Amino acid sequence: MIKYDIKRADLEQHRPYVKGLSWSEGAISTAEWTGVLLVDLLAYHLLPASQRTNYQALYELLKNAGVRHIRFDGLDMDPTGGVFGSSLPIDLALDPHREVIVAFEMNNKPITRDHGFPLRIIIPGSIGARQVKWLDQITLSTDESESFWQQLDYKYVLPTADGKVPDLKSLPAILDYPVQSVICTPSDGQTLKNTGSVTLSGYAFSGGGRGIISVRVSSDGGKSWYEAKLSPASPAIQSNVAEINSDSPSKSRSVKQWAWTLWTVDIPIPKGIDEIEFVCSAVDSSYNTQPEICSATLNVRGLLSNCWHRINIRFDNSDCKK
Amino acid sequence: MIKYDIKRADLEQHRPYVKGLSWSEGAISTAEWTGVLLVDLLAYHLLPASQRTNYQALYELLKNAGVRHIRFDGLDMDPTGGVFGSSLPIDLALDPHREVIVAFEMNNKPITRDHGFPLRIIIPGSIGARQVKWLDQITLSTDESESFWQQLDYKYVLPTADGKVPDLKSLPAILDYPVQSVICTPSDGQTLKNTGSVTLSGYAFSGGGRGIISVRVSSDGGKSWYEAKLSPASPAIQSNVAEINSDSPSKSRSVKQWAWTLWTVDIPIPKGIDEIEFVCSAVDSSYNTQPEICSATLNVRGLLSNCWHRINIRFDNSDCKK
Repeated sequence: MIKYDIKRADLEQHRPYVKGLSWSEGAISTAEWTGVLLVDLLAYHLLPASQRTNYQALYELLKNAGVRHIRFDGLDMDPTGGVFGSSLPIDLALDPHREVIVAFEMNNKPITRDHGFPLRIIIPGSIGARQVKWLDQITLSTDESESFWQQLDYKYVLPTADGKVPDLKSLPAILDYPVQSVICTPSDGQTLKNTGSVTLSGYAFSGGGRGIISVRVSSDGGKSWYEAKLSPASPAIQSNVAEINSDSPSKSRSVKQWAWTLWTVDIPIPKGIDEIEFVCSAVDSSYNTQPEICSATLNVRGLLSNCWHRINIRFDNSDCKK
Repeated sequence: MIKYDIKRADLEQHRPYVKGLSWSEGAISTAEWTGVLLVDLLAYHLLPASQRTNYQALYELLKNAGVRHIRFDGLDMDPTGGVFGSSLPIDLALDPHREVIVAFEMNNKPITRDHGFPLRIIIPGSIGARQVKWLDQITLSTDESESFWQQLDYKYVLPTADGKVPDLKSLPAILDYPVQSVICTPSDGQTLKNTGSVTLSGYAFSGGGRGIISVRVSSDGGKSWYEAKLSPASPAIQSNVAEINSDSPSKSRSVKQWAWTLWTVDIPIPKGIDEIEFVCSAVDSSYNTQPEICSATLNVRGLLSNCWHRINIRFDNSDCKK
């Protein structure tokens, strides 16, 4: 589950107009969700029993009826009296390999109140803002959700827009997100004993089910890189072996990767050095990379900030034996 | 159709070890392909007549039979005596919205000999190297194609690999590609009359059906940007209107974008200026961006070079009326 205003704090350093909660690297979590595929739920209600897995027939039925978007409305109301809502184009909503589900369990227990009890929408590989909690209604529609959150918030208003606010309704609603990586340990600003090397670890992910094929860490500002060990490796890397040969129901559906990839790497530290800036950068299975500098992805709402993550670590070179 | 070793020439400037033909911005074209969906061809041969559009049933059938990859072999032989071949994971090969086809027409005429007569595979949104010409065989398989081109070429050998060649078979075969944009006119090194402004135009695209939502051009090295006009606009932008409401068979299938997006923009040119470096950069519908510098995507084979495109233009400020 990804709040994709993480690292907005980085963007704020570049321009004062970036608006929203000043999230840093922490607005992310991973959980196991249990539910019913949205496409199965619709097929159950709309197709004859003999055709229940014929998703193409369902797609044609909806398309011929003029349906273009599936809308989701929650029970929570905002200050203006509207409910929190979102929608998905039918292509995506009905793709069984996108695994959009109406979820009723989180980590094998009923979803807690804060996470959307009793039902919520889970859209793997998409920003959290579309994943409606406390689900009240599913509507087949010609148009996108009209909610404030679909039409006016979570839009990528580009850097050229300084001052001039474009017609927000004409901009696409953010759904997938770009490749991202973060160093979790050590923490920025920490002082470590110089033992000749340091182990760094963190997470990486990308949108749309694209796996992570590489996380690299540099201690010289990007001139040279150390390749991190990934866990799990991207399905793209292991496509000949484990993942799609697995008989686990959750793994055998597709070669897409929905959760974060954890990584770890050992970096040598020269003797006597006082301070190092470490940067990390990932590559996803479509070979997307992260921009070097945050100003390259500036946008008014401070969304989708995915430049190289940088931390400064000080090293204590004093000899303990003294 | 994208030869994704375009712009390898940029990478060669950074490291002498980059191998392969020194392509610049030109190794790309767009055509209209006509053929039979691969999934329909397989369903026709493997499913009972009443189930012909039940792609999920086909997927389950193949998966239960141990099939994980669909292999394609051409008739052209390489110097080692192997044929040119590739393969796709079944998830992708059987996804009707990925529109993988066995093509028999190019631009409404039989495919010419050079382009693969009589049949070739078209995999929209993927690199050209997988799109086998002069198609001879389609094989259902447990494993990837064993051809040289699938196992040993068109792999992204990462920058840390200088000198050390990793086990190429363990690396994923490149399929999708990252977001890219190019300035086509004016040409790098051209001298233009300074009329107070210049019109730049070019193309942009991204892999996997991700559309282009923004192309930006800068005349000050990326400090400020001019937003280009796009044609066609990304389906993600127009998802409420034209594209998926269209009754054209090719357009009504999905909201994916397979062809390039052309763009144009007018940039003001200050009086008396002698030379400007213009750079362009695109954003795709998953909000992927291009890296600023080519060394950020260095790899031994010089593939997937998608840093900002840069051209230098000289301006003639002499007064013609003299």
